[in-house]
Amino acid sequence: MGRVVCDVTISMDGFVAGEGQSLDEPLGRGGEQLHRWQFEGLAQNTSEREAITAAGAFIMGRHMFGPQPGDYAESWNGWWGQDPPYHAPVFVLTHHVRAPLHLDGGNVFHFVDQGIHAALRQAQAAAGSLDVAIAGGASTINQFLAAGLIDELRLHIAPVTLGAGERLFPQVPAVKFTPVSSRTTDLVTHVVYRRAED
Amino acid sequence: MGRVVCDVTISMDGFVAGEGQSLDEPLGRGGEQLHRWQFEGLAQNTSEREAITAAGAFIMGRHMFGPQPGDYAESWNGWWGQDPPYHAPVFVLTHHVRAPLHLDGGNVFHFVDQGIHAALRQAQAAAGSLDVAIAGGASTINQFLAAGLIDELRLHIAPVTLGAGERLFPQVPAVKFTPVSSRTTDLVTHVVYRRAED
Repeated sequence: MGRVVCDVTISMDGFVAGEGQSLDEPLGRGGEQLHRWQFEGLAQNTSEREAITAAGAFIMGRHMFGPQPGDYAESWNGWWGQDPPYHAPVFVLTHHVRAPLHLDGGNVFHFVDQGIHAALRQAQAAAGSLDVAIAGGASTINQFLAAGLIDELRLHIAPVTLGAGERLFPQVPAVKFTPVSSRTTDLVTHVVYRRAED
Repeated sequence: MGRVVCDVTISMDGFVAGEGQSLDEPLGRGGEQLHRWQFEGLAQNTSEREAITAAGAFIMGRHMFGPQPGDYAESWNGWWGQDPPYHAPVFVLTHHVRAPLHLDGGNVFHFVDQGIHAALRQAQAAAGSLDVAIAGGASTINQFLAAGLIDELRLHIAPVTLGAGERLFPQVPAVKFTPVSSRTTDLVTHVVYRRAED
């Protein structure tokens, strides 16, 4: 069985999204600055970008999949368009189960209403020997952190401050990670943590 | 004239000290975990430890110098004992000016009640061609960050979460830094930022 990994981009002041997240601004005010390294620093950050989508299955919260229920019809495909970057099964944590959504390029979104442990079991079954990636957003990552389920946490620290927004780690009991590597490019510092052995 | 540098150790969730700072626990609950790298990881972190005290002058807030006024007599030497690690002039931001305090090893504490710009001018005059280091605590660092006065920020990210306490960056307007290097050891990730050119 693979590991449970999590890539998350975070500001210097600890935010994964800005304030005022909305349909027009899903990352909140200033949140798009966090992800410049994924769009501008392509050659410099190739290995870290490729690692994000290397998993055999993904788990995400429903806000990361798409807008609020009621705002979208059954035909809504999420934020991702017809060819999302996952190319693997994605398990969406939701209270609104629907039939699996098959998109291009091997992207299949499954909807799970039985919590993070059930989603993880299904994702691990789908991933086989590959890793399962916790794709976000912050509240989903925080649930997995709080449950001690993340084996490798890969923080991508953008050199910006947002001042307000959604944080990683609140309400998460003390986590035990060991930093194993870091690398800096102009737009980001990549830090890899592994769960510490007790 | 040297640069203005700042070393600060911070938890993964962005705290520089835990909650409940007191005379008995000046770093707050759990805060001592932040600084394990300075006491246990000696050989692994030599260059970063030496850089902290390489400046020609230091500036610190009064809480970093010592307990509240009223709790201490004029003879109080701060937290630092008779031979602090600075071995250079230290300028303490305070509303309670007193005569300079001469300790062993070239440690001289000056007390400045005219704000951060005045303290910086005095520290730069004392440092000559060497750097001036903003030694803390968080509120002093945040004032210098907000004023755009820090040329090089050296974050030391300890692999712990504190959950509550004193943060870096709140009330600081968006800062502009470029990450220039990072290095990871078992107990800490060192990230060096330089002020970005506009």
